[in-house]
Amino acid sequence: MRVRYRPGAAEMLAAYPHLVISEPTRWKGKWHELFGDDHPIHIEIGMGKGQFITGMAKEHPEINYIGVEMQVSVVSIALDKLIEEPLPNLKLLHVDGSALTEYFADSEIDQIYLNFSDPWPKKRHEKRRLTYQSFLAVDEQILRSQGEIHFKTDNQGLFEYSLASFSQYGMIIKQVWLDLHQSEFEGNIMTEYEEKFSSRGQRIYRVEAQFPNKIK
Amino acid sequence: MRVRYRPGAAEMLAAYPHLVISEPTRWKGKWHELFGDDHPIHIEIGMGKGQFITGMAKEHPEINYIGVEMQVSVVSIALDKLIEEPLPNLKLLHVDGSALTEYFADSEIDQIYLNFSDPWPKKRHEKRRLTYQSFLAVDEQILRSQGEIHFKTDNQGLFEYSLASFSQYGMIIKQVWLDLHQSEFEGNIMTEYEEKFSSRGQRIYRVEAQFPNKIK
Repeated sequence: MRVRYRPGAAEMLAAYPHLVISEPTRWKGKWHELFGDDHPIHIEIGMGKGQFITGMAKEHPEINYIGVEMQVSVVSIALDKLIEEPLPNLKLLHVDGSALTEYFADSEIDQIYLNFSDPWPKKRHEKRRLTYQSFLAVDEQILRSQGEIHFKTDNQGLFEYSLASFSQYGMIIKQVWLDLHQSEFEGNIMTEYEEKFSSRGQRIYRVEAQFPNKIK
Repeated sequence: MRVRYRPGAAEMLAAYPHLVISEPTRWKGKWHELFGDDHPIHIEIGMGKGQFITGMAKEHPEINYIGVEMQVSVVSIALDKLIEEPLPNLKLLHVDGSALTEYFADSEIDQIYLNFSDPWPKKRHEKRRLTYQSFLAVDEQILRSQGEIHFKTDNQGLFEYSLASFSQYGMIIKQVWLDLHQSEFEGNIMTEYEEKFSSRGQRIYRVEAQFPNKIK
């Protein structure tokens, strides 16, 4: 996600430490405490401007959401939305998605969303794709046993890659949508990218993939 | 595959018992003997009119092929091709694809091709799809350890279903093509259906899926 540099974005985040959680390492293993309930916790890695995660949080008050994004200007745009419409079940995290084990304890998270992740189409950049095995290992660690990744993209190459990567990692492909907007899928919340790409007639791909049982 | 009834088709098959193998049960476990060498054996389940399997046999003389088809008129059309251009590494089988364990011993087959199988789109017909778990169990039995199914289709619904079915059966998705004819895949041999559908601009989907190791 590329956005223009936004002056004062870092200061804005710092001014709302209860929305963009400051010192997130201290909440590792204690996110239920922060939310004040035992509802499941779903995170979106690379939330971008936050349209998806805020939409989900509005639709599902029985679930707690955490939006993770590493670009400060982008987080600040998501924060705008949250300031305008407060949602007690949504927190934002301005951190790098590759270091999630610093912020979440083993099995603390119930579900992960990846939406329109950077495709990194060159083979030599494979390791940067969020569906590469090293990222899946982090995801598996913080997810509960048999936790799932729900992944959407318009990028055909990344989707082809990700199906094989999930499967080769040992995940089970539970369901696949090769043209989400023409399917019977209900309750889809569109991201900013998704609105743009689908209005141009591009297909949206979606998959739900599940990690194996942790308890052997 | 629907074709017009062809008078005399059954008699034609019977006239070429070395091409359309008669009494196939007696070759169970002995197909290498029939071919007269130890080359790997690849089968196509539902070969239709035989354009794919004859094309493959021509391109790969180092592999033995068996085309399986249960409709007599359809087999006779494939037989026409084989009479016109004899191929020592190709045999045809006029049998039902669900009874393959009657004709092949455990682990006798090296690879299976499924091309443009009947999609059976209605949920209540799921069990008839050739990528349903009961067919996969037969395929696994006759395939060598870590054998693969290579599957092509233009049918989006069947492809979505099959990816999940393979994975849930315990197979590994090795590679996926969401638009085969626009990809860098080399050596594709088109089926009759594939030529027709792709000339209309429809995408062709392809997947290579691998069964787990049999030796535990």
